Amino acid sequence: MKDTFLRACRGEKVDYTPVWLMRQAGRYLKEYQEVRAKVDFLTLCKTPELAAKVTLQPVDILGVDAAILFSDILIPVEAMGMHLEFSDKKGPILGEPVRNKSGVDKLIIPDTEDSMPFVLEAIKILSRELSNRVPLIGFSGAPFTLATYIIEGGSSRNFINTKKMMYQNPGLFAALFEKITSTVIDYLSAQIRAGAQAVQLFDSWAGILSPFDYENVIFPYVKSAVKALKKNHDVPVIYFVNDCAGVLDIAKKSGADVIGIDWRVDMGRAVKGLGKRVSVQGNLDPLVLFGPKEHIEERVQDILNKAESARGHIFNLGHGILPETPVENAVAMVEAVHRLSRA
Amino acid sequence: MKDTFLRACRGEKVDYTPVWLMRQAGRYLKEYQEVRAKVDFLTLCKTPELAAKVTLQPVDILGVDAAILFSDILIPVEAMGMHLEFSDKKGPILGEPVRNKSGVDKLIIPDTEDSMPFVLEAIKILSRELSNRVPLIGFSGAPFTLATYIIEGGSSRNFINTKKMMYQNPGLFAALFEKITSTVIDYLSAQIRAGAQAVQLFDSWAGILSPFDYENVIFPYVKSAVKALKKNHDVPVIYFVNDCAGVLDIAKKSGADVIGIDWRVDMGRAVKGLGKRVSVQGNLDPLVLFGPKEHIEERVQDILNKAESARGHIFNLGHGILPETPVENAVAMVEAVHRLSRA
Repeated sequence: MKDTFLRACRGEKVDYTPVWLMRQAGRYLKEYQEVRAKVDFLTLCKTPELAAKVTLQPVDILGVDAAILFSDILIPVEAMGMHLEFSDKKGPILGEPVRNKSGVDKLIIPDTEDSMPFVLEAIKILSRELSNRVPLIGFSGAPFTLATYIIEGGSSRNFINTKKMMYQNPGLFAALFEKITSTVIDYLSAQIRAGAQAVQLFDSWAGILSPFDYENVIFPYVKSAVKALKKNHDVPVIYFVNDCAGVLDIAKKSGADVIGIDWRVDMGRAVKGLGKRVSVQGNLDPLVLFGPKEHIEERVQDILNKAESARGHIFNLGHGILPETPVENAVAMVEAVHRLSRA
Repeated sequence: MKDTFLRACRGEKVDYTPVWLMRQAGRYLKEYQEVRAKVDFLTLCKTPELAAKVTLQPVDILGVDAAILFSDILIPVEAMGMHLEFSDKKGPILGEPVRNKSGVDKLIIPDTEDSMPFVLEAIKILSRELSNRVPLIGFSGAPFTLATYIIEGGSSRNFINTKKMMYQNPGLFAALFEKITSTVIDYLSAQIRAGAQAVQLFDSWAGILSPFDYENVIFPYVKSAVKALKKNHDVPVIYFVNDCAGVLDIAKKSGADVIGIDWRVDMGRAVKGLGKRVSVQGNLDPLVLFGPKEHIEERVQDILNKAESARGHIFNLGHGILPETPVENAVAMVEAVHRLSRA
């Protein structure tokens, strides 16, 4: 198996820079759309053979150095007891947003093997199919990011309800976070036991917080989740923080092996700030893939140069690849990362 | 007239920290809603007496140290030749988004006195009414922020069309920016001649760019606008960059007297990075105003402490005040800034 990705996570020597793309199994691939045309999104997530199938597609098509389990960030939230559905227009909708004590009390801490066996089954299929190829990454939303969905009931613009609860009722907010954090730990531990060789915590919404609130209110839960994972498992943990520029000096203390960064921070500055105890993942603006190939190559080179002094570097986009992205440009990007980093 | 705001902009000694709130004339005030109930939003913007009336409301109600002209960021875009309307659900909608050469060619560089006399008239009324009270701030969107509306035709999630043009057709992108920048310079110059005692450039969307694109593609236009303003007028220029954490070390070189920062960056870190050549404005998370007054006070104190070593500090929110904000909390915030900064 190509272990370049895992070696870069641990800061070991590599022959080239490994690369994968957030949301690499997705709508920009016609092969994905063909599968998706036959089943709705949640059914796809919950059918292990199909989830495994779309997980493998970008490994074949793009030549990336890691596969990431195809699933949705809200799967464990549904397992906590909330009703989940997807609207084509509005995205995810969670029934009865949790905004008071009785809502928090009602949430359960699900046992992953009982409530989400399909996730573990998909991982087992993938472990077999990938055995001689690339590592498999498992994932979960980080506690705050899951909390925003639970409290807002879906996507949000200003996260008023989340911040209201945080400021008005810190005790309730903490009780909610205890439940979510336990859920995340069990969920990722089960994924690792089933065969995931690394895990990524997605803190997609942490960037909406002031550094004050990030550090004092939500970061302790990140650290506690990472600590529990590192104590019981010997796999790299990646902590991705979207819109991280203002909190990177805090995020680097998460205990994770790798800090994933978005595109709104300069890679050189990030590497300098992160120091030599963690590897870095990122951080091309996904929209660069809409431009000409020469420009993509120039930007890949710029990031590779700036990440050269990092403990380890896994190339990635700074956010999920967009459905409208031309596939050939994603292929060109992966090829450029491999070629230029060997040079 | 209380000149504390202007003194802080210039980095002169002050007795207390001046404060105003972005979007302080707005829907969270029932007095504003009473005016707005009688006229639609654009009519309000274009009726000098009414625009002046709502501009004055927060000066009376909150006791802020500056007034900011009530208007919309898209007024000059309409004057450039685009059709503008406001939808309650979708926000601003601009007819025929500009995405090719003929679109850019069709845009005009409006003469502010001819095309937007109502803005200048409102400023003249306000200059009279405010003469013994607080300074008046004029404003415009910064070139990139206006460009996103012109290219997307309204608000956007991923700014695909904007970045597509930027990457695919840099020549056209530059031609568009030349027109917008000239418009902004004329618009703000006219506001200053009419009586605005400071001007703020709102770069509300600059934070969606990588530092690479921010610095190389759009920042030259910011500098050129600021330079033209500073050359011909002796008023402070404030450059507000939303989601600024990743580009603050670039933004500080804009030539503006004050850099306005959002809430996602630590004030202490920002002040350290900005150095002693510019003042700073900001940066309380607007959502803190939804929490208890004791917590608001704690956060005001934290920001005041961290801004103490700045050349000058104008207290503000890190973004516009939200319509749902309790007025009494905004009043409490202003009072806390004054009281705590005198102590």
